[in-house]
Amino acid sequence: MRQNKLVTLLSDFGLQDVYVGVMKGAIARVDPSLTAIDLTHQIPPQDLAAARFCLLNACPYFPAGTVHVAVVDPGVGSRRRGVAIANSLGYFVGPDNGIFSGILAQFPATAAVELTNADYWLTPSPSQTFHGRDIFAPVGGAIATGVPLADLGNAIAPESLTQLPFPQPHIAQQEIVGQIQYIDRFGNLISTIRATAVADRSWWVRLGDRLIPQSPTYSDRPTGEIVALIGSHNWVEIAVNGGSAASVLGLRVQDSIELFIEH
Amino acid sequence: MRQNKLVTLLSDFGLQDVYVGVMKGAIARVDPSLTAIDLTHQIPPQDLAAARFCLLNACPYFPAGTVHVAVVDPGVGSRRRGVAIANSLGYFVGPDNGIFSGILAQFPATAAVELTNADYWLTPSPSQTFHGRDIFAPVGGAIATGVPLADLGNAIAPESLTQLPFPQPHIAQQEIVGQIQYIDRFGNLISTIRATAVADRSWWVRLGDRLIPQSPTYSDRPTGEIVALIGSHNWVEIAVNGGSAASVLGLRVQDSIELFIEH
Amino acid sequence: MRQNKLVTLLSDFGLQDVYVGVMKGAIARVDPSLTAIDLTHQIPPQDLAAARFCLLNACPYFPAGTVHVAVVDPGVGSRRRGVAIANSLGYFVGPDNGIFSGILAQFPATAAVELTNADYWLTPSPSQTFHGRDIFAPVGGAIATGVPLADLGNAIAPESLTQLPFPQPHIAQQEIVGQIQYIDRFGNLISTIRATAVADRSWWVRLGDRLIPQSPTYSDRPTGEIVALIGSHNWVEIAVNGGSAASVLGLRVQDSIELFIEH
Repeated sequence: MRQNKLVTLLSDFGLQDVYVGVMKGAIARVDPSLTAIDLTHQIPPQDLAAARFCLLNACPYFPAGTVHVAVVDPGVGSRRRGVAIANSLGYFVGPDNGIFSGILAQFPATAAVELTNADYWLTPSPSQTFHGRDIFAPVGGAIATGVPLADLGNAIAPESLTQLPFPQPHIAQQEIVGQIQYIDRFGNLISTIRATAVADRSWWVRLGDRLIPQSPTYSDRPTGEIVALIGSHNWVEIAVNGGSAASVLGLRVQDSIELFIEH
Repeated sequence: MRQNKLVTLLSDFGLQDVYVGVMKGAIARVDPSLTAIDLTHQIPPQDLAAARFCLLNACPYFPAGTVHVAVVDPGVGSRRRGVAIANSLGYFVGPDNGIFSGILAQFPATAAVELTNADYWLTPSPSQTFHGRDIFAPVGGAIATGVPLADLGNAIAPESLTQLPFPQPHIAQQEIVGQIQYIDRFGNLISTIRATAVADRSWWVRLGDRLIPQSPTYSDRPTGEIVALIGSHNWVEIAVNGGSAASVLGLRVQDSIELFIEH
Repeated sequence: MRQNKLVTLLSDFGLQDVYVGVMKGAIARVDPSLTAIDLTHQIPPQDLAAARFCLLNACPYFPAGTVHVAVVDPGVGSRRRGVAIANSLGYFVGPDNGIFSGILAQFPATAAVELTNADYWLTPSPSQTFHGRDIFAPVGGAIATGVPLADLGNAIAPESLTQLPFPQPHIAQQEIVGQIQYIDRFGNLISTIRATAVADRSWWVRLGDRLIPQSPTYSDRPTGEIVALIGSHNWVEIAVNGGSAASVLGLRVQDSIELFIEH
């Protein structure tokens, strides 16, 4: 896989402080011609499930060989490993806390290393609180310039990587019960139910006594009405045309979503 | 016009989710050496008037040949056209919903096409909800690498492009009545009255019984005082030195602004 | 020092409007192959102390020769000078209002000019309200393409640059009294007390009757507990593991922080 000099960044650092800018500085120190691209830095603090979701829905759209650095790292400074992983999409660098387990379930790891070679870090004595700057960004930059994974540390078995549990929906004859896994800026409720689970079936979202039929698109229903659709991420999604489904329905992440399936 | 490999992005996607990152991925898939630059992604959801204002005030500052992709798209998935437009500034790619009508009123279109050639899309079967990723970003990337407009779809008459109505101010002998078209982060109130309408005249903003004289700059008046000035966008603007005019005056977009003109 | 074509941007413009995008356009007009990197644009409006802190903690992580443009500019349009400054890190461009005095205290200026040569501005008649677009971004771009400082205006003595007062902590035998200089997105309270002031000493943060011992890292204490540590910026910092110290303790910028030192 050819390196393309792209490094994406995802974190829970927000954009108020200079943490993200500093990671870009650390990447530029490796090679100023690398390009850093933000996926998002607004992951709710330490929310690994949201980070997992965002990586899964973003990384496949980048060209093969892209390096994806992700830093949502509640255990920074503890014994958790730092890792770099290769798969068919490119490379993944960050803490071994399950943040990559969504993407790796779909695009299996072909190699992985624990980051032990301090030659590729900003400093041989990294801080205990900001491995994004001191380890992950410089290592991501190094990979993007062509450094092989094997130079970064000791090979580890991909099966040993930490898994983040994912709440699989319960699928029965006439219903599927999942939950809300993510709420986006528009208040769209993205469920744990994949498009493939309802392919070629007629389905409705059940909300109390109401059945909301599937729509092809947000604007298919009048403004203010609830819409059930397959979102652009290929998950069953509940939206309100021109409004926020999260506000209108008062639902939150991990709340149940129930589909009625015609048989 | 020489391509310069720059693609700007404007949307109402916000920065909380990965939608913007994904569009940058789609551009990088076309050519990883393209540069994507954010104009803003904080357009209020589906607010075409704010998007129109922002494009008009940003695009002229970019080098000629820049590709500007704008995705505020309440009608995504409906029959509205996707378009690419050329003018003296560069190229504009997005939904044909009037979002570009401000910039085109000042820099007229020299060519336009409806985006019908799926060869330049991310996929021949685009989603019904995210044309920014599936159509507009890849097409913008293609133009930035030198693909001619004619390859992207069928030529359409520039006059057929959708116009967004703009509330022209009412100009009389001794007064001009406009309205607030945009409120920025600082709470500055930007009116629909152009600097040219008051050039070489003495003028005051009338607020109830008060007349606020023109100032050259924000800091020209004591902290906390209302300032009337020609803002950096070349519109008549009302500000509060060190504060928010929107909060202090309780005014909102579309509220009236009245100028008294000396004659 | 070799130019590396990187220009960082820091401002209080926020990301809602197109002000930042427009500065990037002005840089691209100088040379579309320059790379603009955001440090942050969420400095509280006109808060020079926060800007000073952010620059000091971000710029040293960029490769030597980087150009840093900073625009927090309460005096725009008044008589304050625009300046460009060189030091061992690279170049600094912005208003002469003390915004760079933190970084220059650690990395002294080797040369400075007042920006008087309009040949390198966007226009010879800059607006009175947006020197970021009209002067600082184009000048930053020019330096990044190799224009020598001497071409940009008249040399000035580095000692004549405006200083922003910094509240030095009071250091006694058994205690150090500083204050909170910055609160980050996580609600971490960053004090004015440097790591070097407590090096090789045992120390505690005194909060009323309580003494909080030094921890190596955030996760060293149970969730919800107050943590005192040396943060990644090398200042004494108070945090709450998994929470916001600012909220839990009700503290704000400029509030006192007291350390007890073992002797």
